[in-house]
Amino acid sequence: MTTLDIPDTPFAVVDTDRLDRNAARLRDHLSTLGVPLRLHVKTCKSVEVARRVQAGPITVSTLAEAEHFADAGYRDVLYAVGLDPHKLPRVAALLRRGVTLTVLLDTLVQAEALTRFAAAEGLRIPALVEVDCDGHRGGIAPTDPTLVHIGRSLGDHLAGVLTHAGESYFAYTPDALHKAAQHERDVAVAAADTLRAAGLPCPVVSVGSTPTAHAATDLTGVTEVRAGNYVFFDLVMAGIGVCTTDDLALSVVVTVIGHQPEKNWVLTDGGWMATSRDRGTQAQAVDQGYGLVADVHGRLVPGLLMTGASQEHGVLSTRDGSPVPDLPIGTRLRVLPNHACATAAQHDRYHVVSGGTAIEATWARHRGW
Amino acid sequence: MTTLDIPDTPFAVVDTDRLDRNAARLRDHLSTLGVPLRLHVKTCKSVEVARRVQAGPITVSTLAEAEHFADAGYRDVLYAVGLDPHKLPRVAALLRRGVTLTVLLDTLVQAEALTRFAAAEGLRIPALVEVDCDGHRGGIAPTDPTLVHIGRSLGDHLAGVLTHAGESYFAYTPDALHKAAQHERDVAVAAADTLRAAGLPCPVVSVGSTPTAHAATDLTGVTEVRAGNYVFFDLVMAGIGVCTTDDLALSVVVTVIGHQPEKNWVLTDGGWMATSRDRGTQAQAVDQGYGLVADVHGRLVPGLLMTGASQEHGVLSTRDGSPVPDLPIGTRLRVLPNHACATAAQHDRYHVVSGGTAIEATWARHRGW
Repeated sequence: MTTLDIPDTPFAVVDTDRLDRNAARLRDHLSTLGVPLRLHVKTCKSVEVARRVQAGPITVSTLAEAEHFADAGYRDVLYAVGLDPHKLPRVAALLRRGVTLTVLLDTLVQAEALTRFAAAEGLRIPALVEVDCDGHRGGIAPTDPTLVHIGRSLGDHLAGVLTHAGESYFAYTPDALHKAAQHERDVAVAAADTLRAAGLPCPVVSVGSTPTAHAATDLTGVTEVRAGNYVFFDLVMAGIGVCTTDDLALSVVVTVIGHQPEKNWVLTDGGWMATSRDRGTQAQAVDQGYGLVADVHGRLVPGLLMTGASQEHGVLSTRDGSPVPDLPIGTRLRVLPNHACATAAQHDRYHVVSGGTAIEATWARHRGW
Repeated sequence: MTTLDIPDTPFAVVDTDRLDRNAARLRDHLSTLGVPLRLHVKTCKSVEVARRVQAGPITVSTLAEAEHFADAGYRDVLYAVGLDPHKLPRVAALLRRGVTLTVLLDTLVQAEALTRFAAAEGLRIPALVEVDCDGHRGGIAPTDPTLVHIGRSLGDHLAGVLTHAGESYFAYTPDALHKAAQHERDVAVAAADTLRAAGLPCPVVSVGSTPTAHAATDLTGVTEVRAGNYVFFDLVMAGIGVCTTDDLALSVVVTVIGHQPEKNWVLTDGGWMATSRDRGTQAQAVDQGYGLVADVHGRLVPGLLMTGASQEHGVLSTRDGSPVPDLPIGTRLRVLPNHACATAAQHDRYHVVSGGTAIEATWARHRGW
């Protein structure tokens, strides 16, 4: 049996015990609320992970993901990044393959480009209008008259509305998370009501983010919830209380390659190329550096952090300056990441374990655009 | 002719006018100093880029790079990350293919593992001892008696010494850069002298970093200089004065997909997946956000920065709060990166231009470990 002691480091590991638990937790929660999940695959970018979580509709962040999952048989795909009209030919190609690919937009320019293209191609291209609930990124206000103008411009292509509570990543209390979830739902439903009041259809009311998906208690009027990070979770999510460090399903196995005793440093072969440069916990109450450090079995080494990163070197030291534990050259460790989406993106595959260190499978990961 | 207006965004571009100029500049400088370059390929990870810079010896940051470049015919390769003894079988495989692969180490444990393995395999494995010149990362002091102990332990495998002035990335004046270069050279030569005084051979005295390679004025006693970032340069290097923004050969083409006029934001389809999360200019006098923004021809848009990044969304805004220029949906722009090594790593290929926007070639990029 191959174990985590065998492949050359650094490499990414997914623990299916934790993945399954995370998947079941949100599945049960959304089942109670009576709203289906549209899994966001931008975190895992892996058909094997997605299949393990659930069959059904998915959300993607790139057309390359849409094409990859279409190749694997997925037929209901939401591309949840504002449409660049230049990409419409790839949207058309997916629709002609029998994939219900829904796009996202928030301007009349995009809506008009879509309708012109669709008319010329003889296609219906379902489109959601992006609504802004918290000033995080894209989308228009649910009260903005442009919403109805876009809806009218889309005509038969109008499929509904979407919002994303991106600011919930910076909500630090259960109350703040709950309010973010409630507000995300309220804004999406308000936008849908605006369209319907104008005589336009709005079958889809899509909301979601990992924090709000877990914090929501009432999703009346919502037709689907998007979330993706939660399959792995990470230290940012643990920092805002959506999970604990025991839920983190993704880690990076590294090897000790040196020591600097005068600096109280342990050096590893896992630098930012293996963990990413994401420092998402820097703005949180507890800055976790480039990640917490566990032994190869996944048990946290108390007080040990990855505090520095060159391209292929990691620096481990202790949070409180106490001496680093004795970790001889060749010792394998696991780094728990700040941001699973970014760390996973540094790797082309996952080595899969179930609680222990036995590698039970290797799952490919897709990338690119 | 395909141009930068054709491929779906985001994608990475290399401008060979700038690449060639950067290559010639360091080639000429080192030629004056009489020391050969050992190109570090960790930045470009591209055989086509490396061949364009020079034929000859290379430095790698992973064994995957060593194997990839060996496949392309490279026969003199330095693996400049401290040796994990578990990786020795891949080192042996490269040596048996006729590649002179030199490894790096700084502990007796590694030296003993290497000599045991080499004896069992009947191989000579050339090894450099890593010497620390500035407390940046690995390496031992040139005066540390361990240096000679390691040298003795290595026996016939001892090939020399190596140092890397990693702290020079934080040197902000020509004088500080020059002193860092001088000190890097002095420490490497002192370490070589220590070994030789103990009766040990030290044919290789290897130094280098992009800042010190350009700032050095006397490399007496040094046998090779390593540098790799300089083929592309980046905003961190411009920030410390090693280059100007006109020298940056790598950029990422993105497309405008939205606006938030009330926030003075332009949204693009290039998020941190396309630029990396590297915020290397954050600690510099001028924080460039996630990068400066140029038009598709490469001309900087004055005052415009990429100030925010989600996975597949970039936020552009102005440094001084003045209104963002009129950049309609569909406009293509180029983001100049903080850190070329990190940004390039997000891409599997480079689209190649020579000053203009005509795409003359596509060069593959390697990755993984």
